Amino acid sequence: MGVVYRRRGFHYERELARMLYREGFAVIRAPASGSRAKRVFYPDIVALYKKNILVFEVKARSELCDIYIEREKVERLRDFAERSGGEAYVVVKITSMGEWRVVPLDQLWETEAGNYRVSKFTLERSAKLEELLKRVRRAA
Amino acid sequence: MGVVYRRRGFHYERELARMLYREGFAVIRAPASGSRAKRVFYPDIVALYKKNILVFEVKARSELCDIYIEREKVERLRDFAERSGGEAYVVVKITSMGEWRVVPLDQLWETEAGNYRVSKFTLERSAKLEELLKRVRRAA
Repeated sequence: MGVVYRRRGFHYERELARMLYREGFAVIRAPASGSRAKRVFYPDIVALYKKNILVFEVKARSELCDIYIEREKVERLRDFAERSGGEAYVVVKITSMGEWRVVPLDQLWETEAGNYRVSKFTLERSAKLEELLKRVRRAA
Repeated sequence: MGVVYRRRGFHYERELARMLYREGFAVIRAPASGSRAKRVFYPDIVALYKKNILVFEVKARSELCDIYIEREKVERLRDFAERSGGEAYVVVKITSMGEWRVVPLDQLWETEAGNYRVSKFTLERSAKLEELLKRVRRAA
């Protein structure tokens, strides 16, 4: 189950990376988890376009729902975004809708246990990835 | 011999990545050559600082000398720099001098065979890495 899940995530990361590349971005994907290089933290995807920096944590879900993310991962994404001057997002493929949605890191809720949640409510109202890319291209 | 050489390059990449991190950059190193993720091209190091993007091909030599780089690598670095809006450099550790030098990609010479060369003459007159980092921090 764990393996299936990880491979599914990997599949959608690749789909997203290819889409961003076609849109003109320079794209870097993190090494697969388990590989040696992963000792250092990297975001799932870093996409660069004319000095605009997008930092992505990639998720896939069949439907709109709450999504939980570990505290450490969010803190490292935030640190990477601050150092780079980039914008950090959780980007979610909703497979039943065939849509990519983006949620800025500052719209996550902290859970009682100290982790983070993208609420279903937030996800329902989130922007589509295409809108973000359109804005970035206009700004560039 | 080949293996030793590759491992030495790896060592200096790590040294450079750590230095850039200490200087406040978000840093991404390419996966080790041979790993699966390397099917896609990545620069040796991408360093990000407040929307400034530096793209590095990393070399190490014991002394100032001509350095040759394959055409395909240079073209891919150039493409990555153009998409990202970043500046691309060959960064060279001269071990006998204990110095890191940076040569902008557009100062490479094309060889008769269609590859590229950082000439010893260019390398002797190249800027130190610290000067580049100082300029980037001032610009940010």
